[in-house]
Amino acid sequence: MERPQFVIEASEVESMAKKSGLSILQLLPSLVKTAQKLARPPISKYHVGAVGLSSDGRIFLGVNLEFPGLPLHHSVHAEQFLITNIAINGETNTQLKYIAVSSAPCGHCRQFLQEIRSASDIQILITSTENEGDNQDNVFRPISHFLPYRFGPDDLLGKDVPLLLEPHHNGLILNDNGNIPNSNPQNLCNGIADSEASQEEIELKFAALEAANRSHAPYSGCPSGVALMDLEGKIYKGSYMESAAYNPSLGPVQAALVGYLASGGGDGYDKIVVGVLVEKEGAVVRQEGTARLLLNSVSPQCDFRVFNCNSGSNNCKKPSS
Amino acid sequence: MERPQFVIEASEVESMAKKSGLSILQLLPSLVKTAQKLARPPISKYHVGAVGLSSDGRIFLGVNLEFPGLPLHHSVHAEQFLITNIAINGETNTQLKYIAVSSAPCGHCRQFLQEIRSASDIQILITSTENEGDNQDNVFRPISHFLPYRFGPDDLLGKDVPLLLEPHHNGLILNDNGNIPNSNPQNLCNGIADSEASQEEIELKFAALEAANRSHAPYSGCPSGVALMDLEGKIYKGSYMESAAYNPSLGPVQAALVGYLASGGGDGYDKIVVGVLVEKEGAVVRQEGTARLLLNSVSPQCDFRVFNCNSGSNNCKKPSS
Ligand SMILES: [Zn+2]
Ligand SMILES: [Zn+2]
Repeated sequence: MERPQFVIEASEVESMAKKSGLSILQLLPSLVKTAQKLARPPISKYHVGAVGLSSDGRIFLGVNLEFPGLPLHHSVHAEQFLITNIAINGETNTQLKYIAVSSAPCGHCRQFLQEIRSASDIQILITSTENEGDNQDNVFRPISHFLPYRFGPDDLLGKDVPLLLEPHHNGLILNDNGNIPNSNPQNLCNGIADSEASQEEIELKFAALEAANRSHAPYSGCPSGVALMDLEGKIYKGSYMESAAYNPSLGPVQAALVGYLASGGGDGYDKIVVGVLVEKEGAVVRQEGTARLLLNSVSPQCDFRVFNCNSGSNNCKKPSS
Repeated sequence: MERPQFVIEASEVESMAKKSGLSILQLLPSLVKTAQKLARPPISKYHVGAVGLSSDGRIFLGVNLEFPGLPLHHSVHAEQFLITNIAINGETNTQLKYIAVSSAPCGHCRQFLQEIRSASDIQILITSTENEGDNQDNVFRPISHFLPYRFGPDDLLGKDVPLLLEPHHNGLILNDNGNIPNSNPQNLCNGIADSEASQEEIELKFAALEAANRSHAPYSGCPSGVALMDLEGKIYKGSYMESAAYNPSLGPVQAALVGYLASGGGDGYDKIVVGVLVEKEGAVVRQEGTARLLLNSVSPQCDFRVFNCNSGSNNCKKPSS
């Protein structure tokens, strides 16, 4: 079986369009069913697929993910998968221009999309024809049409603060400067030879730090990042992405799982054997407990470690009470 | 200091209107600032207040809650607090007709509101004048105006399935029939005399069961309920409320905390000494781990116990993989 392809290069997009006789914008809805087949919704069985076209002519796919045994807020929606896929696999400043999606984006996703610069201009087409009464007529409409009177970054941030899909450099450093503590590295790495373990640990820790440095957390000032390692030693990074409306924020484990699946190699999450989270010590938004719940649930064998970081000048907000 | 009032009776609403010379609809925005003062947003410091008028002429208040030390999905938005307040303190079939709110409802809330029958007709007024460029002109507009092309219950449920704020009877029974296990009741109840402990435990357990029986979980088939007890022995119930879009669902601990605050007695959450969760054994949506995280965080001294229930005919969906 071919490996599922979550990123289609611009040259391939062009040749697909030529072969099919479709324009590139017509190509997007034609790929939605393909995307839907890649979804992983074991709870709802409701497959959602999203197909996005970026400013550099590439196509990115997104699908919904659900995690049995946990509350539903752990779920990743197709539109969020799509954005995360671009954040992980796009170039600097890759912009999202068009989305074709199998069903009407929910309010949670319409809100999450606001984190992108000029979000209002992103064009969305809904391919489902079930709701024809709602005037869904297979045309692209700007997201401002779907979320009028929006609440978003403009309400809370200055114009110079980087938004989602823009470069972030959070300037975080590890509290231990990245040194391996004296603990036995065997504790960390199941099935990895002792001599390799500390090397792997260093690599994972710095991968998680890099993810934390790319994290979008302008509202709480508490960025975080996760690095996962699979049985083959491959590493997948995920950055926490915050929403101005708080609840639609996407956790760092979710982001790393998107990276794992989008790489095309992911059959089951249980191939993930190590997870490392980097976040600020005493942060007012702390991912540790929830990250452990999710990782434990998708891969019970997975070792999980947390390392603290700081930004020199502590810009993480403290609670008022 | 007067106890904050989260529910205003119809007769009092009428006399407030008369005294102020305002119509009842004009009264709603005039109370938004009062509501905002009751908000508990220690992370954002962004106070949101929502004031709702129900079909029976009562006014219900809602405020936003944030919980430091945890991911932001634990937050309760003012609109969600308002709905939960009605669910707890309203009569059977109390309907929400009008909402005045201090800032534009986020997409997450616009989605959550869809769980109410005829949600599209609920009228919303935004009192903030900061965003006048967005044509916010202090008039009530139907929610369909704020979330066009909605995804909601209609997409997934039959017309006869009860929605939020409609009576629910989930028919759940406790796996142990409510009998107290042989364990020492002292384990459960901090600071409560032994002889009372088992009586308290039985009461709490059945309160949580009742909350689970009123839970709105038509999508996963996994209802749940929480009962909290404070230092004075008062009990607060909260029912899990599910959203068609999954992520905006409100957890049972959050719902019970709304009940605690809306009762007017809540200074600090640390007066909560016992929490009981009732949910289905092996349910595909399980609240236990997340409920424990939140309760531990808001009241570290709180004892937390989980009891399983079933519905005779097991209608809880199992995951496909
Ligand atoms: Zn969505
Ligand atoms: Zn909201």
